[in-house]
Amino acid sequence: MPTIHAYAAQNATTPLAPHDIQRREPGNHDVEIDILYCGVCHSDIHQARNEWGNSIFPMVPGHEIVGKVTRVGSHVKKFKAGDLAGVGCLVDSCRECRNCKEGLEQFCEAGAVGTYNAYERDGKTPTYGGYSTRIVVDEDFTLKIPSNLDLAAVAPLLCAGITTYSPLRYWKVGKGHKVGVLGLGGLGHMAVKLAASFGAEVTMLSHTASKEADARRLGAHHFVLTSNEELLNKHKNYFDFIIDTVSAPHDYNIYLNLLRTNGTMICVGAPPAPAQVPAFNLIMNRRSIGGSLIGGLPETQEMLDYCGEHNIVSDIELIPIQQINTAYDRMLKGDVKYRFVIDIASLKS
Amino acid sequence: MPTIHAYAAQNATTPLAPHDIQRREPGNHDVEIDILYCGVCHSDIHQARNEWGNSIFPMVPGHEIVGKVTRVGSHVKKFKAGDLAGVGCLVDSCRECRNCKEGLEQFCEAGAVGTYNAYERDGKTPTYGGYSTRIVVDEDFTLKIPSNLDLAAVAPLLCAGITTYSPLRYWKVGKGHKVGVLGLGGLGHMAVKLAASFGAEVTMLSHTASKEADARRLGAHHFVLTSNEELLNKHKNYFDFIIDTVSAPHDYNIYLNLLRTNGTMICVGAPPAPAQVPAFNLIMNRRSIGGSLIGGLPETQEMLDYCGEHNIVSDIELIPIQQINTAYDRMLKGDVKYRFVIDIASLKS
Repeated sequence: MPTIHAYAAQNATTPLAPHDIQRREPGNHDVEIDILYCGVCHSDIHQARNEWGNSIFPMVPGHEIVGKVTRVGSHVKKFKAGDLAGVGCLVDSCRECRNCKEGLEQFCEAGAVGTYNAYERDGKTPTYGGYSTRIVVDEDFTLKIPSNLDLAAVAPLLCAGITTYSPLRYWKVGKGHKVGVLGLGGLGHMAVKLAASFGAEVTMLSHTASKEADARRLGAHHFVLTSNEELLNKHKNYFDFIIDTVSAPHDYNIYLNLLRTNGTMICVGAPPAPAQVPAFNLIMNRRSIGGSLIGGLPETQEMLDYCGEHNIVSDIELIPIQQINTAYDRMLKGDVKYRFVIDIASLKS
Repeated sequence: MPTIHAYAAQNATTPLAPHDIQRREPGNHDVEIDILYCGVCHSDIHQARNEWGNSIFPMVPGHEIVGKVTRVGSHVKKFKAGDLAGVGCLVDSCRECRNCKEGLEQFCEAGAVGTYNAYERDGKTPTYGGYSTRIVVDEDFTLKIPSNLDLAAVAPLLCAGITTYSPLRYWKVGKGHKVGVLGLGGLGHMAVKLAASFGAEVTMLSHTASKEADARRLGAHHFVLTSNEELLNKHKNYFDFIIDTVSAPHDYNIYLNLLRTNGTMICVGAPPAPAQVPAFNLIMNRRSIGGSLIGGLPETQEMLDYCGEHNIVSDIELIPIQQINTAYDRMLKGDVKYRFVIDIASLKS
């Protein structure tokens, strides 16, 4: 098995550092990818620091991967050497359950295989993510990347992009809808871009006044400072949808009250403590709260194709992998516009 | 103004007792109804005892009203003397807001006028409900009653019926769906009858084993005792919908976990304390929680017509009004199958 350079967390408390891993030789259905860029997702920090209590060490994070195909297995049909390719949050699933058959591999009933911090379906081979120079993935979990986009800025589409694209499509958000986006971070800035491109009227809901100009630049039509009670009151019964991208604890009821009749609040951020939801706030105006998790493989491909056609990418800050620990610290302060992406060339030199 | 016999709560702590009220002479658009039967809703107790803190005394409860038209105003087109007629939870609304125009008067943005414990749109004339011999209501808020049904058993359709019919229709519940009904009371027993009549596979979820036979008689195909953890586990990821009719405090997450991918829990009961909902339980399997409140006038008429065509009524226990306080006590113990209905003849003799 070839040895590959990577950055890994050896345990929950030490910084990420150089670490070599092994990957399998490409099998008949595999695609081998020379990784060029990998986005840095907030869940990389949660897992590297074992904040969800399920970490497998050593851990090579990274599930926003783009690169170039180097080799393909003999049965691979969709890819050839030299093609651009991407890998998102999943590298395998049972492919037989109802959800897999419907292209909702993220909800695989047997449990989908995460791109890192997971075991392959053999139950013992750990998976390693994109903070590495090379990855080998089944072609069914490998995505085609549009050639017209800035490749580094495509990487975050594989998680932040699909996480917001999928619910916007599932709930059929578009022209004539008023959409609030709560929180302007990695997920929020993609939600603004995508919802606006679908024709919705987009309002950024943020507690940081200085984000207004940026929100508007990203495509938001309006900005509501969530500490301004008068402005909040003016938006009662206003929105058809609110995309809640916030993972910090917050009061859902403030935002439920901004939903008009039949309105839906869509949670893509998962705060640590349960939300307190009085049934009355749902019963009045027939409101709903729903959740959504990344997206299945067919929809992830659809999203990439859509972003290619509409020239949509993430706003990124490109860093060498040697700055990953500083980047984590800055992310925890919200100091990134709006996604760090690792230039994997820095790991090869 | 004619004086009318009624039963009223004079304050939050004394039993209901005889009390005379006045009603307006029918105006041009009004229908005067000789009340024959009035259902007893759990919210009658909440309001008579000021448990929601918004009670107006003296209070004549009752919003599940059926009777016979005695007189109509000169502009009334849909009713004539001798017709059967019904009145549900609402007697007026602004008729001009977006919700009213869409036939969702229950969500009137100016505030719909409740059949009792409210003020008419003049802001000062109290409304009195169906624990009385006669009512005068605008024809737009008066419903046609199918002539083929047991009239006393129709009364609860005006609240319990529409409260369950409306969400089942809004979420398009029918053939091919697996529906759980949580709680077998006034609302639950109607949810079972209606969901089964729409072609869904219905499972009663109850913590009372002795309710199984009755649940099946009402139309449930399966029964899950909610204290049986093994049985609950077998129903994980099982239901497309769960209609939650329970107003007592309960853990929503037990039932969220029973929903399959894209499943929805629909709340029509409002427990006193907020539900604790971890966003993660919604994000996994893209689940939703929604609420629903009675139904608008057009849909209430649709429901009555549907029940006429399909011979659906409530299971009731008919009582003279002199037993209303005992009935309240029994309802608090869950000792009613499944709705008390007052025979208003007892108030006339």
